[in-house]
Amino acid sequence: MEFKKKTLANGLDIIGEINKAAKSAAVGFFVKTGSRDETKQVNGVSHFLEHMLFKGTERISALEVNEAFDRTGAEFNAGTGEENTIFYARVLPEYLLEVTKLWIELMRPALRDEDFNMEKNVIQEEIAMYKDTPSYDVMERCRTLHFDNHPCGNNVLGSEESIGNLTSEQMREYFTRRYAPNNMVFACAGNFDWDEICSIVEGTCNKWQRQTATRELQHCAGSKKKDRVEKSNLVREHICLMSCGVSAQDPRRFTASLLSVIIGDNVGSRFYWELVDKALAEAATMQFGAMDGTGAFLSYIRCSGENVCKVLDIIGDIFRSLSESGITKNELKTAKNKILSALVIKNELPIGRLADLGFNWIYLRQYRTIEDDISAIRAVTVDEVNSLIRQLAPGEFTQFSIGPA
Amino acid sequence: MEFKKKTLANGLDIIGEINKAAKSAAVGFFVKTGSRDETKQVNGVSHFLEHMLFKGTERISALEVNEAFDRTGAEFNAGTGEENTIFYARVLPEYLLEVTKLWIELMRPALRDEDFNMEKNVIQEEIAMYKDTPSYDVMERCRTLHFDNHPCGNNVLGSEESIGNLTSEQMREYFTRRYAPNNMVFACAGNFDWDEICSIVEGTCNKWQRQTATRELQHCAGSKKKDRVEKSNLVREHICLMSCGVSAQDPRRFTASLLSVIIGDNVGSRFYWELVDKALAEAATMQFGAMDGTGAFLSYIRCSGENVCKVLDIIGDIFRSLSESGITKNELKTAKNKILSALVIKNELPIGRLADLGFNWIYLRQYRTIEDDISAIRAVTVDEVNSLIRQLAPGEFTQFSIGPA
Repeated sequence: MEFKKKTLANGLDIIGEINKAAKSAAVGFFVKTGSRDETKQVNGVSHFLEHMLFKGTERISALEVNEAFDRTGAEFNAGTGEENTIFYARVLPEYLLEVTKLWIELMRPALRDEDFNMEKNVIQEEIAMYKDTPSYDVMERCRTLHFDNHPCGNNVLGSEESIGNLTSEQMREYFTRRYAPNNMVFACAGNFDWDEICSIVEGTCNKWQRQTATRELQHCAGSKKKDRVEKSNLVREHICLMSCGVSAQDPRRFTASLLSVIIGDNVGSRFYWELVDKALAEAATMQFGAMDGTGAFLSYIRCSGENVCKVLDIIGDIFRSLSESGITKNELKTAKNKILSALVIKNELPIGRLADLGFNWIYLRQYRTIEDDISAIRAVTVDEVNSLIRQLAPGEFTQFSIGPA
Repeated sequence: MEFKKKTLANGLDIIGEINKAAKSAAVGFFVKTGSRDETKQVNGVSHFLEHMLFKGTERISALEVNEAFDRTGAEFNAGTGEENTIFYARVLPEYLLEVTKLWIELMRPALRDEDFNMEKNVIQEEIAMYKDTPSYDVMERCRTLHFDNHPCGNNVLGSEESIGNLTSEQMREYFTRRYAPNNMVFACAGNFDWDEICSIVEGTCNKWQRQTATRELQHCAGSKKKDRVEKSNLVREHICLMSCGVSAQDPRRFTASLLSVIIGDNVGSRFYWELVDKALAEAATMQFGAMDGTGAFLSYIRCSGENVCKVLDIIGDIFRSLSESGITKNELKTAKNKILSALVIKNELPIGRLADLGFNWIYLRQYRTIEDDISAIRAVTVDEVNSLIRQLAPGEFTQFSIGPA
């Protein structure tokens, strides 16, 4: 494994981790923009824009984009979150340059009015579909409640209203500002030739214009409000809990990940043994999400209406016991094994490496080997986890529920 | 990559592919038994049995099974199909021996009556859930119609009736016969020590008793019947088409895979351009399934009721054009790239290698490198695909539909 980097005059970072033993390569653009960078007026524009990039450029149509990917056999995808929009592909080494050229081309889309108007319907349908998915809906609503007026509470998809009112002019303005070379990273992992990739990226991307792209970074402690909505068609109660976490820049992020596994991993966690194994809840999981300058623990619980009080009591007991007695040595050991296994296995593939490579650069402007992360996770102590519990008080949460009348 | 094999006196095959550069290892038992090996009376017993293996042994409880996997951080799973039941895990090298010992232990389950009676409810719920999933239901019903009285038409889950009537005694009898060492393969891939693994497997598994385990292998050309059922709650028509393919032992299996990608890949296929891209169908895909001594092409189409006739006409046109004019050179090239990309990327991980390693042994008793498969795929010609179309006539299919009244 060899790490390489280069920064163009316009601010575009090109980074790569070369692994000549790999059978494939992965390539992607990490754009540092998402729903938290939107105003209420244009909420949803980042995600909408991600769709629009596949509609083609001044030179090639949507059909040709599709055919061009198809020819290479590449598996490609894109995703938009609160903080980042990413575009990536995994491909055999012999097609890497072709796919890289294609992504570079797509990063300067035509954003045609007719495509914009057509795609608006697709986005509206996606919003309607997710609203009909209570597990998703409850998390989005809880996020908004938790972050209150902080922009991290913005919904990724936007609302029917914000998308309905959005103009292509507003999207173009947002695009110019946020898809600036100094607000994105080009990353490549696996089996590739650094000089070849660099010359292709540099040859086209150095014409892109630098812009001012900033982000509001004030910390948010969370509202700790409680709310519930009723939906007559539901048969189960969906509950989301959110509490304050640490940021993607905070060295305690590994400690926070371990804590979330101990409390709410799919199997073998406190939630699992107290709620799922006892058949009180169908699902009860906790995740930790490190973000730019902030972070949050997010739990999702699904149970029958009659069990809601009991489930919430038990959750209260779990958090109380954690803050009073802390975690056990054995819990920490199991959690480390789970996280280390998942980490090593994910990073075995170039496409897995690409994600860590890109996000470490986006958040830390730092190259970290898998071994760096393994050491950091191995080094976490029981005392550090217990001290984090005292500092963050995960039992003091924002709560949103959706359930039957 | 180094391949190793050993056969125990009782017939158990142990195979391994060692890749010291890998960061993980994958391990699994491939049991050559599935719904096609069941009589109508015990239909569903293979899948039910797969569940029962996680209920523990004479020595360890279900709880301890769960905790034992948990401790190692292993990702583990199992699956039952028409022909095989597989149990596998991916794990960091340092936990491989522990996980291997656990699988070996689980392969001789207690099959306790109380667990059997409890789990029966879980299976009945799974049957009910899948019956409510039209895309699954239509494929199962089409399979049964296509294979007519051939055992390949047996449903993997069984029916409410067959599961309701199943006794633990019948399950134990089936287990003894089908989970015999001479009817299964132990496989390991990735970073591991062959001698260590062998000694662990041999040390325990050599006590297992050889049994007579056979399978009916007569070829089935398919019924080519048409049928439809109505379900008042549906808003879309779900259509499944099945036609005769080649077997897992047939050298033409690569040609058949390429043909299915040309006709019905997710994107860029004939189905895609004629049906999905034109918005006549929401989904239209074809898969090729190579089986023991037989094989089938299976297409799934979902569209609105008003488009059904048009969609079926177009499908007729696609098959007619294929049998009259054949495929193009460009179609074959694109299909090869897709299959080769997916193959190489899947095999990059030990867990992906494990699947190919195990199934090649189960079906062919043959070790094949990735390069063997790549060469076989690269060698397929336009003439071979066109000749396969003439021999198999994929346009002559069995058809099952589920749709609104």
